[in-house]
Amino acid sequence: MSRPKPISGYPEFLPSGRIVEQQVLDILRETFELHGFASIETRAMEPLEVLSRKGEITKEIFTVRRLHAEAEEPNAADQLALHFDLTVPFARYVLEHGGHLAFPFRRYQMQKVWRGERPQEGRYREFLQADIDIVGAENLATHHDVEIPLVALEAFERLHTELGLPPVVMHVNNRKLLQGFYEGLGITDTAAALQRVDKYDKIGGPAVAELLTGELRLTDEVAAQCVAIAGICTADTSFVDQVRALGVENPLLDEGLAELAEVVRVAQEAVPGRLVADLKIARGLDYYTGTVYETELVGHEKMGSVASGGRYDSLASDGKVTYPGVGYSFGVTRILAPLLNRGTLTATRSVPTCVLVAVDSEDTRAAAISTAQRLRARGISAEVAPKADRFGKQIKYADRRGIPFVWFGSGADAGTEQVKDIRSGDQVDADPNSWLPPAEDLHARVVSG
Amino acid sequence: MSRPKPISGYPEFLPSGRIVEQQVLDILRETFELHGFASIETRAMEPLEVLSRKGEITKEIFTVRRLHAEAEEPNAADQLALHFDLTVPFARYVLEHGGHLAFPFRRYQMQKVWRGERPQEGRYREFLQADIDIVGAENLATHHDVEIPLVALEAFERLHTELGLPPVVMHVNNRKLLQGFYEGLGITDTAAALQRVDKYDKIGGPAVAELLTGELRLTDEVAAQCVAIAGICTADTSFVDQVRALGVENPLLDEGLAELAEVVRVAQEAVPGRLVADLKIARGLDYYTGTVYETELVGHEKMGSVASGGRYDSLASDGKVTYPGVGYSFGVTRILAPLLNRGTLTATRSVPTCVLVAVDSEDTRAAAISTAQRLRARGISAEVAPKADRFGKQIKYADRRGIPFVWFGSGADAGTEQVKDIRSGDQVDADPNSWLPPAEDLHARVVSG
Repeated sequence: MSRPKPISGYPEFLPSGRIVEQQVLDILRETFELHGFASIETRAMEPLEVLSRKGEITKEIFTVRRLHAEAEEPNAADQLALHFDLTVPFARYVLEHGGHLAFPFRRYQMQKVWRGERPQEGRYREFLQADIDIVGAENLATHHDVEIPLVALEAFERLHTELGLPPVVMHVNNRKLLQGFYEGLGITDTAAALQRVDKYDKIGGPAVAELLTGELRLTDEVAAQCVAIAGICTADTSFVDQVRALGVENPLLDEGLAELAEVVRVAQEAVPGRLVADLKIARGLDYYTGTVYETELVGHEKMGSVASGGRYDSLASDGKVTYPGVGYSFGVTRILAPLLNRGTLTATRSVPTCVLVAVDSEDTRAAAISTAQRLRARGISAEVAPKADRFGKQIKYADRRGIPFVWFGSGADAGTEQVKDIRSGDQVDADPNSWLPPAEDLHARVVSG
Repeated sequence: MSRPKPISGYPEFLPSGRIVEQQVLDILRETFELHGFASIETRAMEPLEVLSRKGEITKEIFTVRRLHAEAEEPNAADQLALHFDLTVPFARYVLEHGGHLAFPFRRYQMQKVWRGERPQEGRYREFLQADIDIVGAENLATHHDVEIPLVALEAFERLHTELGLPPVVMHVNNRKLLQGFYEGLGITDTAAALQRVDKYDKIGGPAVAELLTGELRLTDEVAAQCVAIAGICTADTSFVDQVRALGVENPLLDEGLAELAEVVRVAQEAVPGRLVADLKIARGLDYYTGTVYETELVGHEKMGSVASGGRYDSLASDGKVTYPGVGYSFGVTRILAPLLNRGTLTATRSVPTCVLVAVDSEDTRAAAISTAQRLRARGISAEVAPKADRFGKQIKYADRRGIPFVWFGSGADAGTEQVKDIRSGDQVDADPNSWLPPAEDLHARVVSG
């Protein structure tokens, strides 16, 4: 086989990039588990009908078929396709396994998803998502709408302070607020209005007003009100007064304002500066019915929202029970692939190994293995040099991988072993039963470039 | 949507089963990393031509296609399919990224793979594999053939002692040994002989002899020799003398005997009783060229080999450089799905949560959140009761999930908080800044049922 070329849209990381990704996933997992979210995984494939909404496939999806069944007539009912997100499979999982789950059910799920979209930076055909959702049977209290962004921001804060990822700002809105406002203005097709306002970030307020008057035939005054509310963005609860000042009255608007104010109030206390009420956030065609979240990396706003979510009245329904939920999805690949490509993040080494145990001669390989095993028994990653080369070559082997320490003399008499820090050149006597590396060298670390 | 049914061949675990799986994967990862294996992940899809060997597709594979491209003419050259193992994608990764890797390259990879085979217990259409491989550029020392089973057996030993999985016995052979023996007997089509001997376990020695004389037209005497060597199985290096006693002479046989003896000798010392030389192991049509490994769970031998691997002279070649390797693959789903289904393994709880913080009234939810946060800051998984129900109901909420502790009084004055072990009913004063659960309750544990 000649040298294969990368396939556009399917990012693959080198080992050092994978170390960064693993540490990101470890922090997400630890944060989610500290908050009582249980892990699940769902199969990669769903029946085509599960992936369609009201019979319509709105996403770019990949169907799968057994190669050796290619000749058979495809049976549409049994046709499987790769999941394009983790929400639809989770909904199916809740219906299928509901009898074995306790509600409200808190789950996290970190898996690859696939979309057949045109690849570009930040948009991939295969990418990793990390989702948290809380789903109730029949009902779910609104305090979970406050809980989800706190968990998400706690995770992002750790990614920022521990691994050097950029800090984030979460933009929050509430569908009830916008819908109530539109209803209060006398707009009947509120979904259509929401779709136009969703373009505010891309095309700006005046262009949105034109869409509203041109396509939806709203009056200039009503369109101006829609643009005015979309322009409100505050880091505290002062957005409530700004909305009130627009003079629209509606009970659903009141409900939305109260829910959003509670999210902002609690977040302002718990994670100051990280969450804003941003009344232009609509989340397009998604199935959200209340609070909606979007999240930007500070300094990388051009990447768009890298993590988002919201409240939905009905994640799933089996005809008897309806399951409302609130969830949030971290676009892990979407966040990491650009930061790794640009060298914004990297790892201190390309292997987990902390110590390379040098080999004097092939006759003493067993002694080197024994030394390595004693280091491992105390949690220190160690490998034995693959060849009894001259020591200079063995040091070079370690250096190329970023392994910080090389161990010498394991084949000699007891008490004559030494360990060299190949960065400084310092070499000291050491006992494999007690020597410890500096804490910062024990594991590969993520550093920002 | 009505209640969906499981799809045969795609096992999905409940949260408690997933906890078992996660702890298995954690132990595998930790063991691999302690031995200096670097993690990589490859995309789920490969071009069809990469998945074929010499132009022939020997495995049951799934092709993928963009749904919205269904009408277009399929372009065979660009046709993608889901990988059916982790070895073929790793070979492609080595060729594609070889310029950025340092050899010998030690990697581990834990990902789902897909095969379109007829589903049955232990055989799935989607399953998780965990692979380790060491691959060299142009050459790779044979001591790595000894290293791989030691790493694998160390992992299995931890799975046995820490999580209660059954112990294992690894069966090892060497292709050179068999091939040299066959050549020494004057057999020309050694691959054909190997294929027949591979059925020894299923059909027994006499039936193998019949295949060899009937299908391959070997003499009764030669067939008897083939069956005799296949029947040799020893826990020490005494197999060498047993083979010698058959009186066949061949240099490749000598090489194979020496390599296998070294594996057995070292393993006997390092992990006594866990590895045997078993001269009927052939690994069918696989691409192995030297040492081969198979592994059975003691007491579950009917499941067959749940983890296997071997040495291959050429994992990949780009025309200039050939990459030999030695590797081993853990069939994680293959091991766990039957054990979870039979209840052989389970977890002490279905959630990560250690403490449920009870809520007196919705007015004091903030205080309960603060208590939970103080517990989490010290690594204790905590969640806040979703509803200010009467305490009996809140305790029942915890009980249904297996959460061992419920915290009371967070909304009251300082110094009046208490924690109840809901299993014993014991309730004691506690401070969220200092209380610790017993070590065995901090995380969900895997227990054998």
